[in-house]
Amino acid sequence: MTTVEKEISGGGFVRQPNRFTARITADGSGGHPAGPGRYRLLVSYACPWAQRTLIVRRLLGLEEAISVGVVDPIRDERGWRFPGPDPVTGADFLSELYLAADPSFDGRCTVPCVWDAQTRLLVTNDFPAITIAMETEFAAWHAEGAPDLYPERLRPEIDELNERIYHTVNNGVYKAGFATAQGPYDEAVDALFATLDVLEERLAHRRYLFGDELTEADVRLYPTLARFDAVYYSHFKCNLRRLVDYPALWAYTRDLYSRPAFRETTDFDHIKRHYYVTQRMVNPSGIVPKGPLIDWDEPHGRERLSRT
Amino acid sequence: MTTVEKEISGGGFVRQPNRFTARITADGSGGHPAGPGRYRLLVSYACPWAQRTLIVRRLLGLEEAISVGVVDPIRDERGWRFPGPDPVTGADFLSELYLAADPSFDGRCTVPCVWDAQTRLLVTNDFPAITIAMETEFAAWHAEGAPDLYPERLRPEIDELNERIYHTVNNGVYKAGFATAQGPYDEAVDALFATLDVLEERLAHRRYLFGDELTEADVRLYPTLARFDAVYYSHFKCNLRRLVDYPALWAYTRDLYSRPAFRETTDFDHIKRHYYVTQRMVNPSGIVPKGPLIDWDEPHGRERLSRT
Repeated sequence: MTTVEKEISGGGFVRQPNRFTARITADGSGGHPAGPGRYRLLVSYACPWAQRTLIVRRLLGLEEAISVGVVDPIRDERGWRFPGPDPVTGADFLSELYLAADPSFDGRCTVPCVWDAQTRLLVTNDFPAITIAMETEFAAWHAEGAPDLYPERLRPEIDELNERIYHTVNNGVYKAGFATAQGPYDEAVDALFATLDVLEERLAHRRYLFGDELTEADVRLYPTLARFDAVYYSHFKCNLRRLVDYPALWAYTRDLYSRPAFRETTDFDHIKRHYYVTQRMVNPSGIVPKGPLIDWDEPHGRERLSRT
Repeated sequence: MTTVEKEISGGGFVRQPNRFTARITADGSGGHPAGPGRYRLLVSYACPWAQRTLIVRRLLGLEEAISVGVVDPIRDERGWRFPGPDPVTGADFLSELYLAADPSFDGRCTVPCVWDAQTRLLVTNDFPAITIAMETEFAAWHAEGAPDLYPERLRPEIDELNERIYHTVNNGVYKAGFATAQGPYDEAVDALFATLDVLEERLAHRRYLFGDELTEADVRLYPTLARFDAVYYSHFKCNLRRLVDYPALWAYTRDLYSRPAFRETTDFDHIKRHYYVTQRMVNPSGIVPKGPLIDWDEPHGRERLSRT
């Protein structure tokens, strides 16, 4: 089966720690100075943690500064694979880059990760740090008029909300879906829907999680919501309610989806094929469901919530 | 795994033929005369084919005439099991009754089936014939005022509609859920939703499938609809739409559910545990989802469609 088995403890899923945690900084302290043309971001469109980085890269206009390599959505026992040799890193499999940086690494090789064309080594697969670095350390390369996704005055509040969303929603769906015992599953589902209920309330009167401005918190929540009805509801058994049963959350998700940074990084084909074909311990047949039929372009009507 | 494997051909599910097909008749031709106190109906509350027989037995007031034995919802490699020895047949496992009647039987032992207390042998597991026999051959024992579920003038039309509903809906969900290849799954799902779309249209202007009178066709459709969102949508990947997304079909299902014959034979706990715990080839973890949260008692408003 897969290396996910190593991450099951007492019937519950415990995500492995991120192996590579070097920081890319504006001042170059630590040996990885921010700058254009040097770093390659490796992603899967299927992966919610990777989609965050693609959304931020696009919102901030960092497409020229940071290049992207995309893996195939179907992962076999050899892990993530490039559709052909990646033209920049030269790798066929993502694991080659992990093993080049640490020959003893035997964990799950994950996306997103960042590779340094100068040292030709992996810098980081520490996904929460990647978007923050793009927002703060790459500020000199942001497009004119790019939003401030991580404004200083809101950071403690954003971090606090992100923490709850990470444990109960972003990673919460995995705890439900990869559980091998009823108890850990039940706990994960209860915590997930408790947070969704709170977010529904919060978004009934605010356009985004922090009012009128789009922030890092919205970027982190969106990839899980985008996958919710197509994958997590059935495949991960997160089925108390669907996203479309939450009027505010669902309209909020469509509001975000109406922008290119979100829409063009949301690939339902990659998403569905990845989860249903790859995770045979959950779906032995590998069959990909045809549904659900959902209208993502239904008008969201959220403009009225903006005060600016 | 299970004997269902024997019923997979070319990636598609082909249900085994019913092994025992003797007829119970009012005139006793064939050796099994209809009558009270002689036959025992063996069922699971989880099984849609068995629920039909429980609904008809209750609608027609045959509870005293035909006794019932209920198996445990969880089936292991030994098949359906009684919670304790069945007080009438004496069996611990349903297979004992099958093997007593045919020592060479090596198929899947199914519910519903009917056992004859006089010969102490299984008479029939031919489920479509069981409800018809209750409706026609047991007429002398129907309660006063019992409905005519299979009126002679409608039989050809009822049979024709039942045929389509059987292949695309009742058995269609199994073809989708037990498929081991994408092609047979896709075909089953397309056929299933094509029929649901037709039924939605039909039920928009009629209270029941044949107008103002409840018939055998409604009894056969209901058990699949009752299980749809709780099991077939996710577990069998029948997820273009949920039942609750069909306004007429969903209100029709609640209309039926509001009657004791339907409500008291619908056991969501048995249903969910049976499918999710027993069918490990579809759900290896055996975890039972907590959802969906659905209000079965929401007013259905279908009285307005009755002309009588």
